[in-house]
Amino acid sequence: MFLKTRREAPADETAKNAQLLIRAGYIHKEMAGVYSFLPLGLITLNKVINIIREEIDAIGGQEMFMSTLQSKELWEKSGRWHDEVVDIWFKTRLHGGHGFHQGPELGLSNTHEEALTAIMTNFVHSYKDLPVYAYHFQTKFRNEPRAKNGLLRCREFIMKDLYSFCRAQTEHDEFYKKAQAAYIKIFERLGLGKDTYLTFASGGSFSKFSHEFQTVTDVGEDTIFVHEGRRLAVNKEVYSDEVLAELGLAKDELVEKKAVEVGNIFPLGTRFSEALGLTFTDEQGSAKPVIMGSYGIGPGRVMGTIVEHLADDKGLVWPEAVAPARIYLIRLGSEPRTVIEADRLYEQLTAAGVGVIYDNRDERAGEMFADADLFGIPIRLVVSDKTLAEGAVEQKGRSSAETKLIPKDKVTQILVDKD
Amino acid sequence: MFLKTRREAPADETAKNAQLLIRAGYIHKEMAGVYSFLPLGLITLNKVINIIREEIDAIGGQEMFMSTLQSKELWEKSGRWHDEVVDIWFKTRLHGGHGFHQGPELGLSNTHEEALTAIMTNFVHSYKDLPVYAYHFQTKFRNEPRAKNGLLRCREFIMKDLYSFCRAQTEHDEFYKKAQAAYIKIFERLGLGKDTYLTFASGGSFSKFSHEFQTVTDVGEDTIFVHEGRRLAVNKEVYSDEVLAELGLAKDELVEKKAVEVGNIFPLGTRFSEALGLTFTDEQGSAKPVIMGSYGIGPGRVMGTIVEHLADDKGLVWPEAVAPARIYLIRLGSEPRTVIEADRLYEQLTAAGVGVIYDNRDERAGEMFADADLFGIPIRLVVSDKTLAEGAVEQKGRSSAETKLIPKDKVTQILVDKD
Repeated sequence: MFLKTRREAPADETAKNAQLLIRAGYIHKEMAGVYSFLPLGLITLNKVINIIREEIDAIGGQEMFMSTLQSKELWEKSGRWHDEVVDIWFKTRLHGGHGFHQGPELGLSNTHEEALTAIMTNFVHSYKDLPVYAYHFQTKFRNEPRAKNGLLRCREFIMKDLYSFCRAQTEHDEFYKKAQAAYIKIFERLGLGKDTYLTFASGGSFSKFSHEFQTVTDVGEDTIFVHEGRRLAVNKEVYSDEVLAELGLAKDELVEKKAVEVGNIFPLGTRFSEALGLTFTDEQGSAKPVIMGSYGIGPGRVMGTIVEHLADDKGLVWPEAVAPARIYLIRLGSEPRTVIEADRLYEQLTAAGVGVIYDNRDERAGEMFADADLFGIPIRLVVSDKTLAEGAVEQKGRSSAETKLIPKDKVTQILVDKD
Repeated sequence: MFLKTRREAPADETAKNAQLLIRAGYIHKEMAGVYSFLPLGLITLNKVINIIREEIDAIGGQEMFMSTLQSKELWEKSGRWHDEVVDIWFKTRLHGGHGFHQGPELGLSNTHEEALTAIMTNFVHSYKDLPVYAYHFQTKFRNEPRAKNGLLRCREFIMKDLYSFCRAQTEHDEFYKKAQAAYIKIFERLGLGKDTYLTFASGGSFSKFSHEFQTVTDVGEDTIFVHEGRRLAVNKEVYSDEVLAELGLAKDELVEKKAVEVGNIFPLGTRFSEALGLTFTDEQGSAKPVIMGSYGIGPGRVMGTIVEHLADDKGLVWPEAVAPARIYLIRLGSEPRTVIEADRLYEQLTAAGVGVIYDNRDERAGEMFADADLFGIPIRLVVSDKTLAEGAVEQKGRSSAETKLIPKDKVTQILVDKD
């Protein structure tokens, strides 16, 4: 891999998550709020994506892939085309008859309620065609005026957005609860469970509340009031005596914290089905609008949040579930025996299906150790003359100061088979 | 799944591939040249993508994921920002200080030479950092004036683009040959091998020739001259006595055909490394520009080409390697025994890891058979009272007229274990 750490991130990069990810070669900054994912970054991003995919599939989600170019006509139907209504549009134009960029205006997807509701009008006619739960991982474009928080607020980013289409409020409510539970499981698997709270937030014009999943982090842009015992929080935007009373929360049990919104789920009611004509015929033969919900998670933002949350002054720290490799194997010295043993260990671990980054550069030990820390790989193994003299390999956890020697012929057994 | 076939594709859809894929519920037309992939379509697309990924990984490709928003400054360096030079740009603008869409212009990626070359300047300094082969699957935007060929010419589409970065011409040539061989293998695995030819085409300003992979199909937009014996072709754009002499091809051995370009590989020389300052220090200590190549395949176009190539008057026909399922299981009738046996078979096959679409609707047999054909799944199984009376299940291949009965308790054994 073209792995190479950098001492400095670009001078204009102020967010800790982006600074570390750039220095460790996980991402590249194209411009404010726009990042490319380099090989290590993509592996990590895909691990996050796969955890989300597994849990959404488990509640019946069907994966698809919608386009990012969107027609003006579609968004005019829901009243969300105008910049005064949705102020983060990126727009472009088709070529027209009169030269470049003179044709009809197009929008770049900032969300997909309109697109999917329109698609569903081809597939949903009767109550027998429902419920449907469909999602995709697709790029969203948001023309953010401020994009200074690295992966936490991007102008271009992948989002998992799931949409539910139900026949009745009860059916919707049941799925909404299931999605809540799936989200809790996702954030647990991502290593953010302990500090992520189901948070009551504004439901906008659609419903009284929406629900956010907020991870407590100092750089968070949101303020929430956490009830630790009930694992709940209230977003400042809806924090009032009335709301607290409704939720049965006492002011003095709540603690104010900064947090990052890592997911949100939203009852949409019939807002989009009515605007776009998505109706079904019920068992009595009458036409009814479909009841919808939307459920988002940004895998890149999750990745940035994990960095903000777990990284230390030496660099990244990944939970095993999303680390791009499990082991960072360092070969110190180039004696024939060291080379043979380190190569053998690399092959053995790889053959056992373990992700290994093999650092066999001829660098100073200090530099290789610093890089190992910066990369954030859970386990560091060192093979050197000194460890081999004891028939051993040195093992160290990323977040632990302690090293220990393990017999060189039992590495796979100790690190792999026990799992 | 929200599977539902349609009798008619949209009236403005004239391409056979898009008509069939829309009628079978694989894709949805958002606008001319812009399609969303529905669940079955995404499974098929991902099978194409995975075959490409495996073969590119096998020649040393490192996967990454670059952004689609691109800065004007970057493309000005290579001289490809202006619409007079690249006439298929989609462009947009950041919000500026003075209101919506008044900030700096951005481009939507139509290719990624500039972006990756700029990234590489951070990772390539010495000859020790080379060669690097990096690729991604990412959306390309091309503002095509005519987009009437369904998935064969889109305005928004995913492309696998691989770029090679080498120290010397010999190193480049060696990888270029490897990439050629990988492409041949990819198209073989995709079921297009027999009718896909390595085709000499224009090298533009970069080199004498580039190489296309052209699949012979009546709706192809390109004209090629095929030498069947040597499995080679020459694109009409470079067809001349001089070129034929150079390639050692005699005019009377060539046959003119229409074809679709399903892949292309391109020596770039130092065109981009010089423009963007990508140099390395060689073993003698002198700075040299990196020698580059680019290698593209559009998985969606491949999918459309397979449709054009294999579909018949009843619908889609997928090779096993890319079919979204291997078996289309039809339950005819709703007698308890039929339901039990069909359900059992579905579970058995699914448990054996076989992709199955289970059609247990209460529809007329004719309709279900027609749908099975339209979906293009390789094997059709029918469980009915009649077949169960013989202790059997009826099997039919998609492209065969012949049906045969197989013992109901040996279905898995016959269809799965033999593999």
